[in-house]
Amino acid sequence: MPELRKDPILDRWVIIATERSRRPNDFGSQNAASAPTASVFSPGNESKTPAEVFQIGRDASAPKDTSGWRVRVVPNKFPALSTEGDLDSRASGMFDLMNGVGAHEVVIEHPDAAWDMSEATPEQMGDVLDAYIARNRTLSDDTRFRYILTFRNFGTAAGASINHPHSQIIALPVVPRQLKDQLEVAKTHFNEKLRSIYADLLRQELADGSRIVENNEHFVVLCPYASRFPFETQIYPKNGGADFSRMSAEEHAALAEVLPRTLRRIKNALGHPPYNMVFQTAPITKERIGNAGQWETLEHDFSWHIDILPRLTQVAGFEWGTGFYINPVSPENAASYLRDSE
Amino acid sequence: MPELRKDPILDRWVIIATERSRRPNDFGSQNAASAPTASVFSPGNESKTPAEVFQIGRDASAPKDTSGWRVRVVPNKFPALSTEGDLDSRASGMFDLMNGVGAHEVVIEHPDAAWDMSEATPEQMGDVLDAYIARNRTLSDDTRFRYILTFRNFGTAAGASINHPHSQIIALPVVPRQLKDQLEVAKTHFNEKLRSIYADLLRQELADGSRIVENNEHFVVLCPYASRFPFETQIYPKNGGADFSRMSAEEHAALAEVLPRTLRRIKNALGHPPYNMVFQTAPITKERIGNAGQWETLEHDFSWHIDILPRLTQVAGFEWGTGFYINPVSPENAASYLRDSE
Repeated sequence: MPELRKDPILDRWVIIATERSRRPNDFGSQNAASAPTASVFSPGNESKTPAEVFQIGRDASAPKDTSGWRVRVVPNKFPALSTEGDLDSRASGMFDLMNGVGAHEVVIEHPDAAWDMSEATPEQMGDVLDAYIARNRTLSDDTRFRYILTFRNFGTAAGASINHPHSQIIALPVVPRQLKDQLEVAKTHFNEKLRSIYADLLRQELADGSRIVENNEHFVVLCPYASRFPFETQIYPKNGGADFSRMSAEEHAALAEVLPRTLRRIKNALGHPPYNMVFQTAPITKERIGNAGQWETLEHDFSWHIDILPRLTQVAGFEWGTGFYINPVSPENAASYLRDSE
Repeated sequence: MPELRKDPILDRWVIIATERSRRPNDFGSQNAASAPTASVFSPGNESKTPAEVFQIGRDASAPKDTSGWRVRVVPNKFPALSTEGDLDSRASGMFDLMNGVGAHEVVIEHPDAAWDMSEATPEQMGDVLDAYIARNRTLSDDTRFRYILTFRNFGTAAGASINHPHSQIIALPVVPRQLKDQLEVAKTHFNEKLRSIYADLLRQELADGSRIVENNEHFVVLCPYASRFPFETQIYPKNGGADFSRMSAEEHAALAEVLPRTLRRIKNALGHPPYNMVFQTAPITKERIGNAGQWETLEHDFSWHIDILPRLTQVAGFEWGTGFYINPVSPENAASYLRDSE
């Protein structure tokens, strides 16, 4: 009998269709890794991208936009949002619109196009995390922005248009509804129980154990109870914290090992499938900018986390029409495979 | 400058990235139509599907599950939900779940695997609409169900696993959140203004004209203001009505021409791309089952409509992380192409 499961935080249902259950190799060959070829992101081609906004590795005395970097951040050449201009929010009859003001940056993660994040050394992954954090902090100082999303598309089927390993950072002038919903639920839970809903969730998951992929001193890796997609995986910091760009040095060092290892588990189980990876973090609120007391409250309510969404199934009419998802692999099965796939 | 647009009914933003704007043929060859081969849905193979629950064309005296049908409806052989059993909603700690009770049916739209809905005669399309309506009515009598979704996936990239032309009907034991949100907004609007929000929307769109694809006696075809996807298209009945399975005979006859013509416009503009088509209709409420007065209210608030979502772009990390969508083709451009593509 299939099972309908409700996400404990979002009002979102999934159908775990066990009769359709499949083993990892039933998804076929999923190798989304590309042959290592030079790209516009390769060293020597620095002049072909917009001027860099951040880099790690090159001497401060060396000229900008030259080789010698280990990680490099540049504005997207085809940005979805423009950094120029004011917000100018307005109405047109029943419709609301605003100028597409924001930032859209590309984090070039390594000079080598064949570099594989799932095999990253802690030092390499640490550099990439440093670039994410530096840009998140700088962009959050721009008072036009309300939310910053850091994400990684791996493989053409997951939306990557350039094969050279990279992530993206988008700063938005509005807070997305689905984040507002999470914050609302988290705040209500905290006000009622004086406990973070994420801490409660991790406590229940660790007691149960069936969906845990890894549990170490600083992080819990799990397949969520109401997984939308086969092998959907989340990484939670055990101590919570609303803003991933303010994680502790110990968490930073631990994540630089946990994140590549988690990607490696997925690669070993499924054969390097395309995936989307999303860093869920708190919005840039007035509290965050101005008022330490209110920021502290948000700090207790919400927990940043990472979602990894392997792209093994199609999103189709049923999902668009209802917002429900049909998942042919139970998260308990997925976690069992991933535990054994280090 | 890109533009951020908010859907007038759902709290959903899209980014119309005009700098990325593309012409229809920039999406490459999109022919999702398949070579006409016999399938498990072909005449003569009736015994290979679960026993039919509805058919049009075969004499009532002829044996069931034999050829001679023009349209045939069968339970899905690999259903996402099971028709057997009770709901049994329960909690497991913080988690909510229920038995996956529901219905999952396949509407085999024509005996010929090469049949093309965009070239359907009014009679052929009328048969398919009759099958949708008959099954929606029958399934809505089952008191375990709360919502019925009728949808069509065309092409492998849009999630169709069998090429023989077919639609699907899924009955769910819960009302999806995104429909509840629409109903809530529609009810508030009606209570405040004594007008349907959908009627207001159509009035503004018809006065503006830039997003209108077709306007005839019974239906308006348009590209919505906050289109998530390039060439997203909606069909609205001009007289509203909450439940598409209760459309008038005149609307039925008109839709049997408008729907194939709209699909043909998309095919002519884009080269038969993969798409998802979704029939948005009111939930099965207690009002609908029992109380004519309350049902009448819903009838005034809400309007059924059809969403057609060509699958030309990938949904990736940004969309999963925010619920925002980046659309590289403005709906004004899309409507202009579609108007000229009959």
